Amino acid sequence: MEIHALIFDVFGTLVDWRGSVARAVSEHFGDEVDANQLALEWRAEYDPAMAPIRDGQRPYTNLDLLHRENLDRVLARHGLANRLDEAQKTHLARAWERLAPWPDAVPGLMQARQTYLVAPCSNGSIALMSHLARHARFHWDCILGAEIARTYKPEPETYLAACRALQLPPDQVMMVAAHNSDLIAARAAGLRTGFFPRPTEYPPERKRDHIATGPWDVIATDLPDLVNQLQAAPRIEE
Amino acid sequence: MEIHALIFDVFGTLVDWRGSVARAVSEHFGDEVDANQLALEWRAEYDPAMAPIRDGQRPYTNLDLLHRENLDRVLARHGLANRLDEAQKTHLARAWERLAPWPDAVPGLMQARQTYLVAPCSNGSIALMSHLARHARFHWDCILGAEIARTYKPEPETYLAACRALQLPPDQVMMVAAHNSDLIAARAAGLRTGFFPRPTEYPPERKRDHIATGPWDVIATDLPDLVNQLQAAPRIEE
Repeated sequence: MEIHALIFDVFGTLVDWRGSVARAVSEHFGDEVDANQLALEWRAEYDPAMAPIRDGQRPYTNLDLLHRENLDRVLARHGLANRLDEAQKTHLARAWERLAPWPDAVPGLMQARQTYLVAPCSNGSIALMSHLARHARFHWDCILGAEIARTYKPEPETYLAACRALQLPPDQVMMVAAHNSDLIAARAAGLRTGFFPRPTEYPPERKRDHIATGPWDVIATDLPDLVNQLQAAPRIEE
Repeated sequence: MEIHALIFDVFGTLVDWRGSVARAVSEHFGDEVDANQLALEWRAEYDPAMAPIRDGQRPYTNLDLLHRENLDRVLARHGLANRLDEAQKTHLARAWERLAPWPDAVPGLMQARQTYLVAPCSNGSIALMSHLARHARFHWDCILGAEIARTYKPEPETYLAACRALQLPPDQVMMVAAHNSDLIAARAAGLRTGFFPRPTEYPPERKRDHIATGPWDVIATDLPDLVNQLQAAPRIEE
């Protein structure tokens, strides 16, 4: 393996979206709603909202707008649409810019950056990823992902556009994710793959991504372990 | 003025391309060539090389490849084409990733980043800007510019694509450059404009950009002065 860049899934892999979004919901509604349940419902709208864009039935629309549309749908379902004014809805929709990093994410990224180019390959927009990086203190080399590809993961173009932007062949780029589905798609596009689990991303009953289910190039316990394994491996220098 | 982001010209405005490229040329050819002259000739090929892309006669081609094509042309002109092997030519062509920052650029950017989103809006590619940021120790929020716009400055789309990626209206984004021509184009696209001179970018006989020639929103002596002027101005908070 000759790896020059690590590109990262962000939501779930580097940041705790569920806990952070639930806290943001609580700030607005207190104990009146089940904040964890509302966060899960909001997130459940995520994949269906991207589907028409992946399929070419809707032009590329950034995730910020999809998050807002999805929030409006979830609030309406719970009879909460009129409880927030426009500024409050905007603020809540931007909770995705204020997600808390998992404790190992910042030190792991700093260590990774000593050897590799590092960039998000997220479905989040350039603006969302820029604001989130400030909040979470991620130091990226550049921001890649859905917006430069003009489509969403797991479309192969999302991964391939990132490799083209880095001017690296896909087999010199490792996609790092806590989700097997992301790595299935990245591997099919020719990228290297790295996995570690985030067992508390979802409530404990959902065990889908608690273990690696594919032949990923590196399987680790967390991000520092993944970087240690990579840095311990013999590396071909330029 | 309500400014939320500063986007920067890089070559000349933040880094000394002429001195750095001349040093890279000297590393290969010693005193045998006039390294300063070769750097100037290489740079003189820059604008004509982008013209067919701006005009739509050539598909978007990243600046890394244009730099290499331009280098080959200049080496051939001086009878030097066979003096370097392929690896040496690749290394020399990538001198643009190893340009030295002007002394005030890093502290000025750090100060700017306390208040504003900061990003390059350069004709350099995402990869070039990523490598250069590591070399010069620039900490960007994201990398904007020609590659996300798929065309080159001063085409208005280059500036407007940066504003869209930031999800900001153009009048909340300031283009910062040491070149009046860059600011003429940015202002025409609706952006705010900030200028300071870099009188040693070119040899002393070229005085074109030694002073501001347009009604720029901020005219400063260097980057820290520009940021001080902006931060001293009353600012509308979100």
